[in-house]
Amino acid sequence: MDLSQLGEFGLISRFQSRLKYRSPQVIQGIGDDCAVLSLNNGNYQVLTTDALVETVHFNLKTHTPEQLGWKTMAVNISDIAAMGGQPKFAVLSLGIPSSVPVNFLDRFYKGLNQASQKYKVALVGGDTVASPKHLFINLALLGETLKKKVFTRSGARPGDKIFVTGTLGDSALGLKILESPRKKWKGSEALRKKLVQRHLKPEPRVEVAAWLAKSKFRVTSMIDISDGLTQDLGHILKAGKLGAELWEPDIPISKPLIKYSIINGLPALELALSGGEDYELLFTLAPDDVTNLGIESITKADPPVTQIGVITAKKGIRLISKTGRSKALQRPMGFNHFKGKT
Amino acid sequence: MDLSQLGEFGLISRFQSRLKYRSPQVIQGIGDDCAVLSLNNGNYQVLTTDALVETVHFNLKTHTPEQLGWKTMAVNISDIAAMGGQPKFAVLSLGIPSSVPVNFLDRFYKGLNQASQKYKVALVGGDTVASPKHLFINLALLGETLKKKVFTRSGARPGDKIFVTGTLGDSALGLKILESPRKKWKGSEALRKKLVQRHLKPEPRVEVAAWLAKSKFRVTSMIDISDGLTQDLGHILKAGKLGAELWEPDIPISKPLIKYSIINGLPALELALSGGEDYELLFTLAPDDVTNLGIESITKADPPVTQIGVITAKKGIRLISKTGRSKALQRPMGFNHFKGKT
Repeated sequence: MDLSQLGEFGLISRFQSRLKYRSPQVIQGIGDDCAVLSLNNGNYQVLTTDALVETVHFNLKTHTPEQLGWKTMAVNISDIAAMGGQPKFAVLSLGIPSSVPVNFLDRFYKGLNQASQKYKVALVGGDTVASPKHLFINLALLGETLKKKVFTRSGARPGDKIFVTGTLGDSALGLKILESPRKKWKGSEALRKKLVQRHLKPEPRVEVAAWLAKSKFRVTSMIDISDGLTQDLGHILKAGKLGAELWEPDIPISKPLIKYSIINGLPALELALSGGEDYELLFTLAPDDVTNLGIESITKADPPVTQIGVITAKKGIRLISKTGRSKALQRPMGFNHFKGKT
Repeated sequence: MDLSQLGEFGLISRFQSRLKYRSPQVIQGIGDDCAVLSLNNGNYQVLTTDALVETVHFNLKTHTPEQLGWKTMAVNISDIAAMGGQPKFAVLSLGIPSSVPVNFLDRFYKGLNQASQKYKVALVGGDTVASPKHLFINLALLGETLKKKVFTRSGARPGDKIFVTGTLGDSALGLKILESPRKKWKGSEALRKKLVQRHLKPEPRVEVAAWLAKSKFRVTSMIDISDGLTQDLGHILKAGKLGAELWEPDIPISKPLIKYSIINGLPALELALSGGEDYELLFTLAPDDVTNLGIESITKADPPVTQIGVITAKKGIRLISKTGRSKALQRPMGFNHFKGKT
């Protein structure tokens, strides 16, 4: 068996099952956006790590060093937000090829600093080493949750309402634009910029997560969308052996994405369903809460939060069109590290 | 200015001075073996990260996958030990080239698991990504200290006694042996194995650190020896603007190292002073404690602990020979990531 057959998630579950040491202080181990730890007497802590590899996650032609620094911090913060946590302390490892100038690193840290300041994350240490060829970046981030309130991937039940923050697919289209020759697609510079920005400078939804953690809503599951809506929804469904109906007209697609897609004949809906790197939050709420507490208090958040469907006992994801036609989404679409886009 | 001029430590201090967000919960930030965090009501937490890059830190010809897995965990545990902490939770990032077989990863995790079991570290998460060419490993490790007792690099004073655990230089010679053609040097297979093992399977000194943390000794400073005795002692001295006398006859050198050096005409003392990757603990104790509590209770530890010198107000490191001759060690010798061995 080789890696491409086993895949990223196959590899992870393979090792998870072989772990030799387990600690009673681990509330949630491998398999969620963060680990949940009970070291504190009171609150839980959440711990996550994310690696960014040149040519795999970024390209020095498409990302400025500042953007790369921001993104390094932002993608990890998004994982902390997805657990309902507040990011706190980060350690950074850099594997730096000798070809990288000091000025590049200055600018990288500038971007990292911007995100660290905005989201109140203290960079407290790291490891700086040489790398033979490619730039390798790794951040580990420790956060904490409000009392023992933590949102995991598991916990959704049939009937729970599915929500997402912001809009989906912009980042994926932004990446497509960045990777294509300048003249391949039509559309104004302003339009391009808006989409590209969503890819280069993701804004983790810490505030929405914090608001939900403080609210009376029972968040039954949450994940951040890094691999694409359907694939990440797949993780929530797999955890509970569930399915979902997604309402096609309600999938939040931004005006720039719609415009650009129309001009260039691109599949806007597909980008929104499976694009990846949105760093929006996908979560489920108990239906009673939505009825009793009112959906308005959620949907008027900034960025807006949209109900996009409902959890079902029947497995699989079905997309319900405006006219009520149901179409099964064959399998989660998204990114597999050892296969490329599936 | 390029990276080789600035160097690893120059780069670190450059960014440390530019940090935009500082948290009052950070007791010790960048610049020690671990960050020290005050999230808990009671105890401190310690957080560290270490990256291992193929061709820079290891070579797949000299390390088995099991050894690499062990080492990944061990070098981080050593950093936690150097703060007087107990390692607790780890997150692992792997950048894996497509050429790496699943069997390699199975064996890597086996070694990691062995260390995790021995030192009671729970692997709670990570990130598994593709890498274009070289294997990249990063571990971040969270630990905690006994109450608020934490050992840092700063705190040593003139007159403090300097101690090290175990013996020094074996790992450096082990690496030399691994990297040389089989027939280059003489010596029995058993001798070779002992030295090579010290390089391939370092044993972090968590128990000695824990014993010291519980003892009545005031540990005024501590660091783990990863870059070589003189360079790591240099960090302690720099923190307090101090110097040190090292007693040449007391530098602990193992029998295998002495034997192998004699047979092959290698500089045993130099290896012990600047070898690197010993993962022994270097620490200083208040002189009164050593007098009052008795040196025997320390030195009879397992592995043995040896007093090797004394902290001085006069800067620089001087090596005092058996006959009392003093020789200045010009500058810290050790490893600089962007220059190679200095």
